[in-house]
Amino acid sequence: MQPYNIYPNDAWYVATFSADLKDLPVARTICGEPIVLFRTASGVIAALEDRCIHRGVPLAGGECVGEIIRCPYHGMEYDVSGICTKVPGQDRLPANARVRSFPVAEKDAMVWIWLGESEKADIKAIPSHHYHDDPGWAWSSIFLKVECDWQLLNDNLMDLTHLGYVHKQTIGGDPDAHTMNIDLKTTRSGNRVEVKRWLPNTNPPPFYSLGNSFSGKIDRWQEIDFTPGLVRIWSGGTDAGTGAYEGRRVGGVQFMGLHAVTPSTATSCYYHFTQSRNFKLDTSTELHKKIHDGALFTLLEDKTVLEAQQKRLLDNPERGLINIKWDIGPLQARRVIEERVATEAEQRLASAG
Amino acid sequence: MQPYNIYPNDAWYVATFSADLKDLPVARTICGEPIVLFRTASGVIAALEDRCIHRGVPLAGGECVGEIIRCPYHGMEYDVSGICTKVPGQDRLPANARVRSFPVAEKDAMVWIWLGESEKADIKAIPSHHYHDDPGWAWSSIFLKVECDWQLLNDNLMDLTHLGYVHKQTIGGDPDAHTMNIDLKTTRSGNRVEVKRWLPNTNPPPFYSLGNSFSGKIDRWQEIDFTPGLVRIWSGGTDAGTGAYEGRRVGGVQFMGLHAVTPSTATSCYYHFTQSRNFKLDTSTELHKKIHDGALFTLLEDKTVLEAQQKRLLDNPERGLINIKWDIGPLQARRVIEERVATEAEQRLASAG
Amino acid sequence: MQPYNIYPNDAWYVATFSADLKDLPVARTICGEPIVLFRTASGVIAALEDRCIHRGVPLAGGECVGEIIRCPYHGMEYDVSGICTKVPGQDRLPANARVRSFPVAEKDAMVWIWLGESEKADIKAIPSHHYHDDPGWAWSSIFLKVECDWQLLNDNLMDLTHLGYVHKQTIGGDPDAHTMNIDLKTTRSGNRVEVKRWLPNTNPPPFYSLGNSFSGKIDRWQEIDFTPGLVRIWSGGTDAGTGAYEGRRVGGVQFMGLHAVTPSTATSCYYHFTQSRNFKLDTSTELHKKIHDGALFTLLEDKTVLEAQQKRLLDNPERGLINIKWDIGPLQARRVIEERVATEAEQRLASAG
Repeated sequence: MQPYNIYPNDAWYVATFSADLKDLPVARTICGEPIVLFRTASGVIAALEDRCIHRGVPLAGGECVGEIIRCPYHGMEYDVSGICTKVPGQDRLPANARVRSFPVAEKDAMVWIWLGESEKADIKAIPSHHYHDDPGWAWSSIFLKVECDWQLLNDNLMDLTHLGYVHKQTIGGDPDAHTMNIDLKTTRSGNRVEVKRWLPNTNPPPFYSLGNSFSGKIDRWQEIDFTPGLVRIWSGGTDAGTGAYEGRRVGGVQFMGLHAVTPSTATSCYYHFTQSRNFKLDTSTELHKKIHDGALFTLLEDKTVLEAQQKRLLDNPERGLINIKWDIGPLQARRVIEERVATEAEQRLASAG
Repeated sequence: MQPYNIYPNDAWYVATFSADLKDLPVARTICGEPIVLFRTASGVIAALEDRCIHRGVPLAGGECVGEIIRCPYHGMEYDVSGICTKVPGQDRLPANARVRSFPVAEKDAMVWIWLGESEKADIKAIPSHHYHDDPGWAWSSIFLKVECDWQLLNDNLMDLTHLGYVHKQTIGGDPDAHTMNIDLKTTRSGNRVEVKRWLPNTNPPPFYSLGNSFSGKIDRWQEIDFTPGLVRIWSGGTDAGTGAYEGRRVGGVQFMGLHAVTPSTATSCYYHFTQSRNFKLDTSTELHKKIHDGALFTLLEDKTVLEAQQKRLLDNPERGLINIKWDIGPLQARRVIEERVATEAEQRLASAG
Repeated sequence: MQPYNIYPNDAWYVATFSADLKDLPVARTICGEPIVLFRTASGVIAALEDRCIHRGVPLAGGECVGEIIRCPYHGMEYDVSGICTKVPGQDRLPANARVRSFPVAEKDAMVWIWLGESEKADIKAIPSHHYHDDPGWAWSSIFLKVECDWQLLNDNLMDLTHLGYVHKQTIGGDPDAHTMNIDLKTTRSGNRVEVKRWLPNTNPPPFYSLGNSFSGKIDRWQEIDFTPGLVRIWSGGTDAGTGAYEGRRVGGVQFMGLHAVTPSTATSCYYHFTQSRNFKLDTSTELHKKIHDGALFTLLEDKTVLEAQQKRLLDNPERGLINIKWDIGPLQARRVIEERVATEAEQRLASAG
């Protein structure tokens, strides 16, 4: 429970990967709310306040039976709408015996949750990510809890110049490549911020030869697409002059990175990451494992820096910071979030008035 | 140190088992007070404020020599009344060199402590528990620290319907057995709350055959007896119609469970448990070890639930709870404690006025 | 960051041993300030605020390259004066891109730091300790973090009567030896407190025979010299009547213990210890290792007591303490610190007015 909202509530956040929600309940704290996720025998998914209304015990310690979740302490049962459907040994159910339920939806192998008012939850507004169910793409996923404000992770993703330092030994390589002679374009429309970085007519980096044998130069791109709760980074290259920058991107080497950043508390967040690729699609190979392990190592490098950053910021929250050239993307993303939080606060005030 | 009293002080609490208080000091925090328990060479036991008046070092890190306890830092010595009897190298003892001492008494293999005013401490008021020193009974003990408000553990003991859920794999069995067709009677007299559950003329459960070969039906009982700091649960069965419910309980299978719950801080307590039985009294057997280990496993199941409950309640202390049918016993016990705390507060006010 | 100064800032504190500051940055929190220490390629040492002005990341996670330290996140570089000399990919450096730098100096194999105003930092005021670079002495060092207010460690060093209790099994021996028939003299001059303890014409203790074969009685001394941040304890003995108490101390057995106590937070400090001796100077021997390990064991005994003391004091900070005969030294040292803190506060007020 936060004293006031510091995250947008009217947003679809990834709560967990579908593959991690099977017959056991899953506990999460999202936007400060303790939540239990579960899947019923008939396959319906649900998200409830993770606190039995009887004595406050977390339901996530209980079990899923049929269409209900059962409290581990005295066996009270709740259906997917949060209504208590059984008090063992008691005929009449208390009128107010229910816990809060949250709209959830399963899409593209992820479970999405809506923290705001249920009436506003529009399943059609959930972003699509066909890469998780497309025979032309192979992917794997990573889940981490990071002990930092989700805004710090958003900042991290919106400014990739850190690759040359944090990930020097992994995906970064030469630091100058990320800051010199860069064509950077940041645009915002509504709740969306895009950062585009194009490198036309360049030599393909060695790593790309894993995926394709290019005969000559390529047109490269690195494109970041932000909306609160979801950052996607599309990177790759195709034969030069074949239309990469006009929207024709066929073959070549392409990676689609999904970074679903879900606020947990004011100083922690969940990091759901998937990496999809359009080459060598067999996921049983050593290459697949190598790509996955490389991504995990890279994410752990970020986690290390972000958690140290969070601690230092908490040491003296009043101490100022300065912005540099590369902060346009991160600052635009923060601006979107601020506006959303302010708008929601105004709406609550108006509806209360 | 609590800001105000949230536990009854005028009560005898179990501080430790006698067997755990030998030649080394024992450290406890009881009702928020750091306390050192020790036993002198002549066998006297004492409980003192666990903080040397000189520089605040815990005395429990020191040693017992003769009739005193010695501070581990500069060797100051205190007798069982808390008076400093030696400052090494200094002839005159400071007038105010003393720490608080607490009334203690040893009874039935347990050390009892009184946190309230010494004048009110009446050793005759300490409950008797002859099972610890009776050739007709065998017993063993368990000591746990549980990270929850002692009231949550009291609640747990006063409503045994949790057996079918928390202890399903151990002592619980069929959950319905604990909630269906139950004859439950809750009575309060003074500081005492009794919850009686009788199952007349039933088949003996398989577990009971460990202890006795019944020829036919039995009269079963489960009787909980609460007073602040001590909950006893008497369970068992004797041949049907031989007077179990009129007070004649001879032979059969009987268990006396002692649960001495001692508040430590606002969110932790000490759990002293003993289980006495009236059959197969040899304590060197595999059966004895099996019964003991089963009890330990069961208590750890409770500890898991209670600590998760405590954390969730602290997440949002303002969030309400609801009561169900089985909460009469727990609520009566809480009512006794509230009244005791309120009465003590009034008495302090009156004596201050 | 402390809400107000509770340590003297205008003092030279040991920040680390020279041997521990090589090519990697060293992180410390000194007087509540997070600080990174580093040594440049040319050998210059520096101490900077350990917080990149860009996004707050600790610089100590970065690397030293040439004459700068580089932030691990986005590669910002700082010189030894704390000025940002490079923002990767950005031509113009922000005007206010700098972090605080602290005066440092290397002397006698230790790195010293000054937390107060730079103009007041006078390198000549750093105490000399020639024992670390004197062919007539052999030494070894120990570094510990102790989770207690530095004042508690100062107290510990200023009253050695604890040797008979805390260090009974190691350097203490008979407790009475430290408190009975002691000639104790405590003097203060300015910021200095000296505690002298002389034992003229006594038998050499067995331990001393490790270092020298005395033919007869010796004049022994134990002399403590305090100034904020540094306590030195000189102990030893020379042939009786040869002038030990008149300042002529040649040969015999002599130990010089350096205890540089540096405040970290309000409840933690750094303990830099060295022990120098004037006998059996070979540091590759078993004897040397034995002396070193004995000192480490002894320091860990102190750490155990001090951390227990700190916790107990925090339990109830309002609860009073009493002083005894041996507290003159510790109280004088505390008085020096209080006066220094008060004087600094007055000076700040005056210069602000």
